[in-house]
Amino acid sequence: MSDERVVSHEARVSHETSFRVRYAETDQMGVVYYANYLVWMELGRAEYCRAAGIRYRDMEADGILLAVIEAHCRYLYPARYDQEIAVKTWVANAGRRAVEFEYEIRDAQSGRQLATGATKHMFLGTGMKTVKLPEKYWPLFGITAPI
Amino acid sequence: MSDERVVSHEARVSHETSFRVRYAETDQMGVVYYANYLVWMELGRAEYCRAAGIRYRDMEADGILLAVIEAHCRYLYPARYDQEIAVKTWVANAGRRAVEFEYEIRDAQSGRQLATGATKHMFLGTGMKTVKLPEKYWPLFGITAPI
Amino acid sequence: MSDERVVSHEARVSHETSFRVRYAETDQMGVVYYANYLVWMELGRAEYCRAAGIRYRDMEADGILLAVIEAHCRYLYPARYDQEIAVKTWVANAGRRAVEFEYEIRDAQSGRQLATGATKHMFLGTGMKTVKLPEKYWPLFGITAPI
Amino acid sequence: MSDERVVSHEARVSHETSFRVRYAETDQMGVVYYANYLVWMELGRAEYCRAAGIRYRDMEADGILLAVIEAHCRYLYPARYDQEIAVKTWVANAGRRAVEFEYEIRDAQSGRQLATGATKHMFLGTGMKTVKLPEKYWPLFGITAPI
Repeated sequence: MSDERVVSHEARVSHETSFRVRYAETDQMGVVYYANYLVWMELGRAEYCRAAGIRYRDMEADGILLAVIEAHCRYLYPARYDQEIAVKTWVANAGRRAVEFEYEIRDAQSGRQLATGATKHMFLGTGMKTVKLPEKYWPLFGITAPI
Repeated sequence: MSDERVVSHEARVSHETSFRVRYAETDQMGVVYYANYLVWMELGRAEYCRAAGIRYRDMEADGILLAVIEAHCRYLYPARYDQEIAVKTWVANAGRRAVEFEYEIRDAQSGRQLATGATKHMFLGTGMKTVKLPEKYWPLFGITAPI
Repeated sequence: MSDERVVSHEARVSHETSFRVRYAETDQMGVVYYANYLVWMELGRAEYCRAAGIRYRDMEADGILLAVIEAHCRYLYPARYDQEIAVKTWVANAGRRAVEFEYEIRDAQSGRQLATGATKHMFLGTGMKTVKLPEKYWPLFGITAPI
Repeated sequence: MSDERVVSHEARVSHETSFRVRYAETDQMGVVYYANYLVWMELGRAEYCRAAGIRYRDMEADGILLAVIEAHCRYLYPARYDQEIAVKTWVANAGRRAVEFEYEIRDAQSGRQLATGATKHMFLGTGMKTVKLPEKYWPLFGITAPI
């Protein structure tokens, strides 16, 4: 029995957060610059955690960092200045070593899909060393047992 | 005979550009914030084009936009403030409708690999409509014929 | 009688907007990177206009751009990740050629002042040429007459 | 005799650094977003220090932080994508508690002035407490004696 194996996330609990596109986020093409979608995914993660009762800043203060090891984004339709954006975030997979988030970015009014994304993270402790996620954080990521 | 099919890029011409990590690019984890790697890929693309004799700004002025439709980054080792970064960029695939770039991000001194990435782009013309890449730009992306 | 002279803004109408500090906005000092306060002032301006019944994006679509000609910020106390920030925005001075905004940035919970700022803007029309602000926008900036 | 008084900087040693405007730095107005000029001032400071033989990252590792307490920018002419920018940086005033930098931002080719700016910084030590600048760093800021 190893704690390395990934526990698949059964209950698809998701959280949605929304905000308006900032002028700073646009580029000369007149649409949102592509790297900013990753910032929006970060907002999605933070609000997903908050909705689950844990502030990411408290996790960091507690010595658990979520270091990104992979990020992906598919751009479907350009986002524009002042548009109200909704980011839906859920845990796609989680284990004691790593967690995978998925995202859906939509126009908050029409529901039109603008982008989809995914990020993978490792848990790091003090000194940026990999750590096993302490049990108290398991529910946050839908981990029920270290199979 | 269709111009829709993708012409695979035979000659792996690559270009390397380097720069230092800005303080603005770091975050409170003490390393470079993950979205900024996509900005570095943009620098890689611009310098790849310049090295091939075409300034991307001139292409845009000529009415050909490279709209990102997909981006991916694998983070291998954290980059830090003031570190000299080298981005190697090459065309992985290109056709008259779309092009795929790949990137390798290294520490410029030690050569240590920090990240790898890829972006896919569609060619857009005036009014953000998809267009076929004009023939004069084919050599830039290693397109030899619209097979 | 000249429309060049600046009409001082009598009624100090102000608007307050709030949001949380993004991880992307921090730097390795563990606090918000100083340039991001100018992004927050932009949010303040946009929400000031919206509260007054005019969306800045509609003004731009109408051919009136607010080009920044000066910006100033005094940093009093560092802002941190996930902190709830309140930006209070008001028009300090306005004329048909230019407008001056002032800002107060506070911790939304405690009310503690974090920064104060100011920006000056010129009105630009098509082709980035200076224009006189059309009369329909005067109330937005508290301009009552072109003295 | 007090070390609190500011020593005016006699020898106007300045340093110039240059780089190209990134696509990420533009906004939908087609020019560089105003907050990014403060990022360029940061680049100017870092290169000013490096030219004087001290890497800012080593100063931070040594426990001396330069915390911004004021920033100002006058925007004279818009900067555009891919333009080569030159930032000239010098110390306008320095004491053991604080230092003031000034900047001139130009088009590197034509020399056309695009912006001027200034930033004031306090020296902070461990725990973000104000400290007096250690003597070994005095030459960097042109401090000859704690008058």
